[in-house]
Amino acid sequence: MTDHWTLHPDRALPAGELRPIAREIYSHTASLPLVSMHGHVDAAVFAEDQPFPDPAQLLVVPDHYLVRMLVSQGMTVADMGVRPVTADSGVAVETDARTIWKRFCELWHLFRGTPTRYWLEHELVEVFGVTRRPSAETADALFDELSERIAGPEFRPRALFERFNLEILATTDPATSELPHHAALAEEGWGDRIVPTFRPDPLLHVTRPDWTGLVDELSAVSGVDASDYAGYLAALRQRRRAFVAAGARATDHGHLSADTTELPAEEAARIFAAARRGEATDAEAQAFSGHMLFEMARMSTEDGLVMQLHPGSLRDHDAAVAATFGPDKGYDIPVATEYTRSLRPVLEAFGHHPSFGLIVFTLDETTFSRELAPLAGVYPAMRLGAPWWFLDSPDGMRRYREAVTETAGFYNTTGFVDDTRAYASIPARHDLARRIDAGYLARLVAEHRIDLDEAVETAVDLAYHLPRAAYPALR
Amino acid sequence: MTDHWTLHPDRALPAGELRPIAREIYSHTASLPLVSMHGHVDAAVFAEDQPFPDPAQLLVVPDHYLVRMLVSQGMTVADMGVRPVTADSGVAVETDARTIWKRFCELWHLFRGTPTRYWLEHELVEVFGVTRRPSAETADALFDELSERIAGPEFRPRALFERFNLEILATTDPATSELPHHAALAEEGWGDRIVPTFRPDPLLHVTRPDWTGLVDELSAVSGVDASDYAGYLAALRQRRRAFVAAGARATDHGHLSADTTELPAEEAARIFAAARRGEATDAEAQAFSGHMLFEMARMSTEDGLVMQLHPGSLRDHDAAVAATFGPDKGYDIPVATEYTRSLRPVLEAFGHHPSFGLIVFTLDETTFSRELAPLAGVYPAMRLGAPWWFLDSPDGMRRYREAVTETAGFYNTTGFVDDTRAYASIPARHDLARRIDAGYLARLVAEHRIDLDEAVETAVDLAYHLPRAAYPALR
Amino acid sequence: MTDHWTLHPDRALPAGELRPIAREIYSHTASLPLVSMHGHVDAAVFAEDQPFPDPAQLLVVPDHYLVRMLVSQGMTVADMGVRPVTADSGVAVETDARTIWKRFCELWHLFRGTPTRYWLEHELVEVFGVTRRPSAETADALFDELSERIAGPEFRPRALFERFNLEILATTDPATSELPHHAALAEEGWGDRIVPTFRPDPLLHVTRPDWTGLVDELSAVSGVDASDYAGYLAALRQRRRAFVAAGARATDHGHLSADTTELPAEEAARIFAAARRGEATDAEAQAFSGHMLFEMARMSTEDGLVMQLHPGSLRDHDAAVAATFGPDKGYDIPVATEYTRSLRPVLEAFGHHPSFGLIVFTLDETTFSRELAPLAGVYPAMRLGAPWWFLDSPDGMRRYREAVTETAGFYNTTGFVDDTRAYASIPARHDLARRIDAGYLARLVAEHRIDLDEAVETAVDLAYHLPRAAYPALR
Repeated sequence: MTDHWTLHPDRALPAGELRPIAREIYSHTASLPLVSMHGHVDAAVFAEDQPFPDPAQLLVVPDHYLVRMLVSQGMTVADMGVRPVTADSGVAVETDARTIWKRFCELWHLFRGTPTRYWLEHELVEVFGVTRRPSAETADALFDELSERIAGPEFRPRALFERFNLEILATTDPATSELPHHAALAEEGWGDRIVPTFRPDPLLHVTRPDWTGLVDELSAVSGVDASDYAGYLAALRQRRRAFVAAGARATDHGHLSADTTELPAEEAARIFAAARRGEATDAEAQAFSGHMLFEMARMSTEDGLVMQLHPGSLRDHDAAVAATFGPDKGYDIPVATEYTRSLRPVLEAFGHHPSFGLIVFTLDETTFSRELAPLAGVYPAMRLGAPWWFLDSPDGMRRYREAVTETAGFYNTTGFVDDTRAYASIPARHDLARRIDAGYLARLVAEHRIDLDEAVETAVDLAYHLPRAAYPALR
Repeated sequence: MTDHWTLHPDRALPAGELRPIAREIYSHTASLPLVSMHGHVDAAVFAEDQPFPDPAQLLVVPDHYLVRMLVSQGMTVADMGVRPVTADSGVAVETDARTIWKRFCELWHLFRGTPTRYWLEHELVEVFGVTRRPSAETADALFDELSERIAGPEFRPRALFERFNLEILATTDPATSELPHHAALAEEGWGDRIVPTFRPDPLLHVTRPDWTGLVDELSAVSGVDASDYAGYLAALRQRRRAFVAAGARATDHGHLSADTTELPAEEAARIFAAARRGEATDAEAQAFSGHMLFEMARMSTEDGLVMQLHPGSLRDHDAAVAATFGPDKGYDIPVATEYTRSLRPVLEAFGHHPSFGLIVFTLDETTFSRELAPLAGVYPAMRLGAPWWFLDSPDGMRRYREAVTETAGFYNTTGFVDDTRAYASIPARHDLARRIDAGYLARLVAEHRIDLDEAVETAVDLAYHLPRAAYPALR
Repeated sequence: MTDHWTLHPDRALPAGELRPIAREIYSHTASLPLVSMHGHVDAAVFAEDQPFPDPAQLLVVPDHYLVRMLVSQGMTVADMGVRPVTADSGVAVETDARTIWKRFCELWHLFRGTPTRYWLEHELVEVFGVTRRPSAETADALFDELSERIAGPEFRPRALFERFNLEILATTDPATSELPHHAALAEEGWGDRIVPTFRPDPLLHVTRPDWTGLVDELSAVSGVDASDYAGYLAALRQRRRAFVAAGARATDHGHLSADTTELPAEEAARIFAAARRGEATDAEAQAFSGHMLFEMARMSTEDGLVMQLHPGSLRDHDAAVAATFGPDKGYDIPVATEYTRSLRPVLEAFGHHPSFGLIVFTLDETTFSRELAPLAGVYPAMRLGAPWWFLDSPDGMRRYREAVTETAGFYNTTGFVDDTRAYASIPARHDLARRIDAGYLARLVAEHRIDLDEAVETAVDLAYHLPRAAYPALR
């Protein structure tokens, strides 16, 4: 370790004779604007444009990748500053930012070989300009250094947006949101740079405890009575139109299964009515949610919103943690996921439709070569999303290209999406993806499978043109 | 890109310090004769030995790998010259060969990183001697150049057979075929070079709409009344004997599942009878097809035909495309496939039988290390087939060796099969496989896991001796 | 091949520019003591400390990895000297050690690219000091050379233990064992070096033909009447305490499924009672075995024994071979295995328990990135075991690190376990694992993802500190 911490310019590029080729390819994408079409930063962050509170709240507490690793080695969720969702949980939460930061720094070695480590290095050095590695010894000084930095005006969200060279950033928003922050941003001229994404998940799962209330909220927000099935569909259509008007380009669907089986309309209506009475079974709820993916696809053919599907995460694996601390705390665990049969209804119905776009993600790598690349390699409506979540990592991205390209090529993929709520990590994530793609392309060049000029053109397409094309503007 | 297009002699070999070792190993296999024991070129091509009609019909229209990629980016199947199976489809099909060829050339970039690109480069340069890369600009000149070439006598199928250094080529033929082209070829002295393969699939699936007619055809061709179960088995035995007499060495089975569960004979007879009355259920049909794989294995122990099984492709994923254009149009999509339990009945019964040979393929890579290599690594009757279809690619073949070798070694694999209906691509496919095996072996040498002389001997075995041994001559 | 056979010092290290880095990392772990916490060498070997009988009995006959490969290419189990379990089998077994040895040497080429080959090279050269490679020509001389060697006192088990630099070795022992060999070893001062492991598998599967007898044996050994469910649990608790007293640190569970669903106590008692009457169904037996994994986990929270789970092997795939020759003859074949839902009951109940440790293994590589790394990366009680069985190989271990590290890091894995009954192969196996980890870490260093000092520290942790920490001493 050195006192003066810098990032190596060749980091994450392949070693040996591939490196100069990869470096050449990467040089053509390194400075391209960031097109961030799938993320989870809250629009309020930009509407309010306030300084980040402290290093722990900025980099540790809200990052479930990071918290989960510390929990796996003896910290608790509360030790890392995560607050219970209810006031009466009785859980003692660490509230001292410096203490939280120190705990993280002392366990820095746990992150060796992980993308969290890679992203944080990039953030600390490139974004915040610190020169000391996290450790028990440096924790205090780092905390002070970072605290001073983030107080400055150049570290406010919009200033960083410019510095990050972000061209556009999509947020993720509940279907019932009236999108006030996007409206405020639009008034200030940011309307084409920060756009919403329509996420109706809880409205489509009829046995959730909050479902009835959400449907009532849907009625209120849409001005359409959603208390019967026809009204519910009409209200969803209204919300989608409102999102399109607010600049949305896509929907986002996080179901457990990729099933898209259409039900007869009367059967869907029957389940909906039963659900309103609190009488739907789990099997009915599951069938209804698959049916609603089919309906969402149909609506996409009408309004042009690109449909994003990322199934296969069993949320809240530990029920007690979820009850105390809420969702998204690192306890979402993937399961094997089927696509060939599950997507068949939607692809047979709309897979050749000229205004339908379907982007599919997975946490089950086995489906890349077996199911997803073969499907994306024939249906014109379908594209393969970037490696997602646990697979958004140097080797994960490399395996993705290796598994996908030979069947689907590059042009049936969408390029990178960062999919993050950790705002400061966005440049690191895009940069890493560009490096990994450069390395993969360099191997194809070195093995004389493509030419260097083709590799450069492809790299630029993956970094910039493909994500733009995959999420076209609708207004 | 250069004006004078050549293939790099080191293409598809690993870069860096492995390359000289790989080059040395490859030098020992590059010129070995091609043993093509599993393919789909029609025997009529050789019996008739006519020139190929035009570049589009030769290289584009019949190649579903190629058509599917163009379809995935906005062309239609009909745009690429594929004709509907019925005269009254109402679909406007492109019939101008030059137009089809141009569409392909304009979208050449889609194939970057795919084996289709690799094979086509080899074909265009090595087989047809063109010197321009496909592009919008070169499409016309390339079309003219290729058209002139393929008109010449040295580009007729038999002349190419010699030039390709093909030692033997197996076709795939319906069980009901009387093999007239093979008979004609035998009369002209080609009987040991072009041999049939027995493929009974549609006869074993009793709920297919054409099943009853096919069984009647089986009766007619075999001279054995196949209208009851015992007769059906006897007729199948007769056809197998006829294929053996015509030079066949193997059978070929493309079921969706690998299930080989034997039914009690009376139960099989009952389902057969129900199916003749059009009353078999889907579950009965599935059980019967699994049972018939068991019966095919039993017949293989009698007549010596090697049994090839390649399950796990969900055919005709888009029913509308299949209804209009027929099968094999790029819409076959893999599904997860189970082997350990499915093959158990056949392996317990015949896995140690001295005259049984079972070659298993997969589209589900996860089974290589988990199921197939462990099975092939203990049962003497079983061998692992080459990486198949979507996996017949540079990285797919590399992953296959990496996943299989450590458990099953090299000698429980069969060497390469090209499995293609694209005749002109056969040398490219064998050459690529030899390069990839050389690269894999080179790594073992560089890591001091085997010696160079062992690697060379192994490479020669994989390229030549193992496919010959896996498909022994029966007459 | 050379006459003077030596092992290359860089074997199994990556080639090219990674090699010097890997060599540097490996140099820090090469001489560390071996911590062998999961193995299958019989404690009697050390208690009796007798010379090994002959080269075939030492290296060939008991090694099912080796026998299965020879069987796959035409030898029979009996040809390789494996004896039937019953006297009246009628099978002619080869009893001449030299003949068995020759058969193995003649088929040496089958092992190219396999870990068996790698381990045997290491054993022959490093442990036994022979200088000729196995072949038909060298078989006799090798047999003589080896026979002379193993007769000497320095090749007795305890002498090898010292020479192997073994710090501690765990055996695997039936729950009903009174551990007499461990007691004898303890009296001679070996009690902390050779420790038992508690393996109750057959007692937890109530439809096994020997189950009732085993439960009676459990009563006798434990002094607790195990004829009802409460007594059975109490007797198991007693045996676990006896194992702890004898130095055990862990339990070992080889179920087909990873299911850990707890049953209501009365339902478990009901199934137990039915099983005692011989009336339990297969479904009940399966539910009971999953429930008992839950109970074993609960007992681990009480007594501190680390719980090792390695599911997913379908034992005795060929029933006839198993009937004649017994288990562990190379016919155990993996199946797809589910963990996310299966482990949920145990992880929700005890995954955050401060005295619970759960080490999970798999034969299904697809679960590394999809299920196991995500689980081990959040639950503090869970660690990921080393790549197991067919995956304990150079490329298997590399793929494991690539699939696991980015999500779970290094510190949620346990380091290496050799899991072998081939005593002389233990140093080769640990050495290979250290080389592969050095190679993986070297790539991270070369790609500037970690620093060299971090890589060295991590390598030492993986080779030595992590296995010690994962299996803490309990007395």
